[in-house]
Amino acid sequence: MLRNVTCGELRISDINKDVTLCGWVQGVRDKGSLVWIDLRDRYGITQITLETEKLPAALCEQAKKLGREFVIQVKGKVAERYSKTDKIETGGIEIIPAEIKVLNEAITPPFTIEDDTDGGDELRMKYRYLDLRRTLVRKNLELRHRLAIETRNYLDKQNFLEVETPVLIKSTPEGARDFVVPSRMHAGQFYALPQSPQTFKQLLMVSGFDRYYQLVKCFRDEDLRADRQPEFTQIDCEMSFVEQEDILQTFEGLVRHLFKSVKGIDIPALSRMTYGDAMKYYGNDKPDIRFEMKFVELNDVVKGKDFKVFNDAELVVGICAKGAAEYTRKQLDELTDFVKRPQIGATGLVYARYNTDGTIKSSVDKFYNEEDLKKWATAFNAQPGDLLLILAGAEEKTRKALSELRLEMGNRLGLRDKNTFACHWVIDFPLLEWNDGDPNLLASLAGRWHAKHHPFTSPKPEDIELLKTNPGAVRANAYDMVINGVEIGGGSIRIFSKDLQAQMFDILGFTKEEAQKQFGFLMNAFEYGAPPHGGLAFGFDRLCSLFGGSDSIRDFIAFPKNNAGRDVMIDSPSEIHDEQLRELSIDVRKSVSG
Amino acid sequence: MLRNVTCGELRISDINKDVTLCGWVQGVRDKGSLVWIDLRDRYGITQITLETEKLPAALCEQAKKLGREFVIQVKGKVAERYSKTDKIETGGIEIIPAEIKVLNEAITPPFTIEDDTDGGDELRMKYRYLDLRRTLVRKNLELRHRLAIETRNYLDKQNFLEVETPVLIKSTPEGARDFVVPSRMHAGQFYALPQSPQTFKQLLMVSGFDRYYQLVKCFRDEDLRADRQPEFTQIDCEMSFVEQEDILQTFEGLVRHLFKSVKGIDIPALSRMTYGDAMKYYGNDKPDIRFEMKFVELNDVVKGKDFKVFNDAELVVGICAKGAAEYTRKQLDELTDFVKRPQIGATGLVYARYNTDGTIKSSVDKFYNEEDLKKWATAFNAQPGDLLLILAGAEEKTRKALSELRLEMGNRLGLRDKNTFACHWVIDFPLLEWNDGDPNLLASLAGRWHAKHHPFTSPKPEDIELLKTNPGAVRANAYDMVINGVEIGGGSIRIFSKDLQAQMFDILGFTKEEAQKQFGFLMNAFEYGAPPHGGLAFGFDRLCSLFGGSDSIRDFIAFPKNNAGRDVMIDSPSEIHDEQLRELSIDVRKSVSG
Repeated sequence: MLRNVTCGELRISDINKDVTLCGWVQGVRDKGSLVWIDLRDRYGITQITLETEKLPAALCEQAKKLGREFVIQVKGKVAERYSKTDKIETGGIEIIPAEIKVLNEAITPPFTIEDDTDGGDELRMKYRYLDLRRTLVRKNLELRHRLAIETRNYLDKQNFLEVETPVLIKSTPEGARDFVVPSRMHAGQFYALPQSPQTFKQLLMVSGFDRYYQLVKCFRDEDLRADRQPEFTQIDCEMSFVEQEDILQTFEGLVRHLFKSVKGIDIPALSRMTYGDAMKYYGNDKPDIRFEMKFVELNDVVKGKDFKVFNDAELVVGICAKGAAEYTRKQLDELTDFVKRPQIGATGLVYARYNTDGTIKSSVDKFYNEEDLKKWATAFNAQPGDLLLILAGAEEKTRKALSELRLEMGNRLGLRDKNTFACHWVIDFPLLEWNDGDPNLLASLAGRWHAKHHPFTSPKPEDIELLKTNPGAVRANAYDMVINGVEIGGGSIRIFSKDLQAQMFDILGFTKEEAQKQFGFLMNAFEYGAPPHGGLAFGFDRLCSLFGGSDSIRDFIAFPKNNAGRDVMIDSPSEIHDEQLRELSIDVRKSVSG
Repeated sequence: MLRNVTCGELRISDINKDVTLCGWVQGVRDKGSLVWIDLRDRYGITQITLETEKLPAALCEQAKKLGREFVIQVKGKVAERYSKTDKIETGGIEIIPAEIKVLNEAITPPFTIEDDTDGGDELRMKYRYLDLRRTLVRKNLELRHRLAIETRNYLDKQNFLEVETPVLIKSTPEGARDFVVPSRMHAGQFYALPQSPQTFKQLLMVSGFDRYYQLVKCFRDEDLRADRQPEFTQIDCEMSFVEQEDILQTFEGLVRHLFKSVKGIDIPALSRMTYGDAMKYYGNDKPDIRFEMKFVELNDVVKGKDFKVFNDAELVVGICAKGAAEYTRKQLDELTDFVKRPQIGATGLVYARYNTDGTIKSSVDKFYNEEDLKKWATAFNAQPGDLLLILAGAEEKTRKALSELRLEMGNRLGLRDKNTFACHWVIDFPLLEWNDGDPNLLASLAGRWHAKHHPFTSPKPEDIELLKTNPGAVRANAYDMVINGVEIGGGSIRIFSKDLQAQMFDILGFTKEEAQKQFGFLMNAFEYGAPPHGGLAFGFDRLCSLFGGSDSIRDFIAFPKNNAGRDVMIDSPSEIHDEQLRELSIDVRKSVSG
């Protein structure tokens, strides 16, 4: 070993020990008679101190010439520090060097290796190996490691077996887009990378594995958004002989274990909310319940006056922002601008201030008198000092817009603290949704029912009859875990009967032949004694970012891709040799527009 | 939960408890007045017993009609068993059922779900989900799970961080063949799947991660052999500020921990052997040292008589099979046939029996008298009762053939017990080997030096000068861990200087531009303060099969591919939709021969 201690471990009790350390030069301060080197490694920072009058001149000269990020080995003796600091754990000691060896020099990094770096996003992605030197980024990945270890510990204790499922599988173009892999040995044929190990984990249940999990890479060829990556990691789980309640209990247990073991936080038992209530009270299937501010529907209260906007609206709905009656005109204008942004799309915002003196003033006083407005306040159960914010329009769009406004108000009122965690389940999702032309699906799939969760999700037994008459009304035994308004995990009880599975594929627009070709192996497996089973998957990247108090999963992935799906550090994807294309029996199309 | 106990947990102490079990019907025995059901799940087998005179007729009728592999739920009471058995852990009890519910029926499986199944390989692969029901196969995957958990426990305690590296990376056609993934968003460009996370783990060292590991899927588009899979799992590790000795100690510790914690076996400290000695004494860079039987070179002893075969041979070399002098003519003929098989390729086998009466008889008595043969015996240090087996010919080929014969003799003499484990290191590998036209490399790479380990392996400092004059003689700081003649892991100390890395690429026939295009990110990283580092990777599938006492890694992979790289269960690879090809900007070539 080129060292016998790390840069994070020496304490007062180590004084007079002869030690050898290795690390990176964080910085050199030269005060003439004193030279300090801050030596950094993963474990901490240790100060090397040279009193130039006491040490050989050559050694001191060498120390002064060390550049930022040089890799050095220092042999010396541990001494008590003159001016101690408790800012770093080794702040009680320093090293009096006897020898300094430069293991590798370094040119000047393109940005500073500090928490508060001067490097922009693009530069840091290109030099990701330097960005990863920053303590902040490394701590994120240490957190990820710890979460993975604790996840495995918990599931292992619960008798789950980690089973690796294949990465080279088969394309199922009826879901989101697959990444595919041309086969050299089978010309014209392709493997696909898994969007999830769904069918394999169900087969493991048919095999009697009883409890399965895997921390597993999954792949989805989507048009990327800021918080999506083409490859992502799931905590993927499945259990046999269970009902929905058992799954909820088991994985609520996992998340509570993670909060306790990794963050020392006790999370109470998770509350549950139906999908219907989530949409009704929060306009959102993943409501942030760190704060209340539920939707209040106002059609009965506001219609019938001369205000055309409300009279013509399918839905008038609002929220009550506690204690915000003092909002200035400027603040209210900002909120109006916020809801009118194209991505939110409301046409306007109506507000009413319930002043602390008991009066109510609204932006529509022309149409509503004080008595009318009192009725509004009653509907909201508002108190003096509250601010009512109201949107009107087509139902679905208005709920969605109000949901955004609610979250914005939560931010403005400081109700969304990153160190507060509100976890709950959303249950009773619809089984199906109509695909109007989802850009993440092949164009040929538009105008068909699409499985809201996936085609293997079981309808609620009491709703099965509706499959024939009103598929959109069928509820699924499906559930999402939501933490702070983020969907952290989701799953379902699965279909385990061949006939019901066949019926499901029929509703999704598969011909019998297509269903057999794509998923015959699974439907056949159901004939050989399939147990009742269900499971779920957590988005591990997102779980890490939530635990780390960040909105971006990219900060918790060692080598992420950018929004165009590129790894700018290694410059991938890239062209390949003609010899490779020839061996794989494929050509690149000359015209991209084709 | 559909059960409150599993089929493996009830004991005498549970008598009179009311229980609910779920599982698969292993079998039903109907003796008229008594009907027994063996109910199976992952945890064991529990017997359900029906005394037909004491229980409702309908229940008994239902029990008799249950088919093999039906999934049922049984409610009943635990009773003491009349005729106890200690063959199964629940052998002291049985269940008197009150209710049996069929959760799912099963058609007759295509083979029996028993350790000793009647299903052939192909059938079992097609119905892998049924094959996985067999206790034998499930135990293999349970072993794999346990090994993964213990690997992580050990490395976590040693301060290693598990970091996930990307799966969608960049093609480096200078190694073995890559699997590639066409990019939809970047027409004409491709990602590649990693053959190993080599460059990423080195970048993590440049980042100061200090100790990295990952259990990670890797991919290699090779022509497959029985023990190869296109996707395989590695325990991938890297450490900073270490020398070769530190790596050997650390990972010898891992393997000893695994043997101890998973199999309860104490493995002694690992011995070391140079590559040169391995080739000289065993004709093999991964010698099985469960038994001695070292090669003895005989050129000095046997040449100069009238036996042309020996006189003309570049090398005459043999082994001494202890106690095998009594081998019959038939057995010796079998050995001759063995070495003459095309894949071994010897032209013949010379033997000499050192009989227990002290006489020596050889297959070449025409040319060598008793006195000559005594000299042979002396060279081998043979004792009366031993059999000498000798091959002659071109050096490399002859060593290789004798290595095969040695292993065959080890098998025949019972010296290769699967429950005995001999672990050791092979060190000082050559840095380079000449590529005469390796079928696993692109044809255009033939006639060049090829990195024996990989291009990032460091030459021994004392051999660096030879890089210019005699590259083939340069030894690397590279090492393999060998257990029972299987290469279980291998690694090296890495180059960490940009100049040396550039020199290495030059020797491997890269132009400066190619090297920069493929590996510029790594060489640039070396300029920003790269620490000395090294690491290794274990073949996890192979480690599992070794621990499980099997020669085939396929038995330890849940859903393996066959020798043609196909998953016959899901029928993959397969054709994809034209719409997919169009979106990916690729065409399938009409003529495969192109």
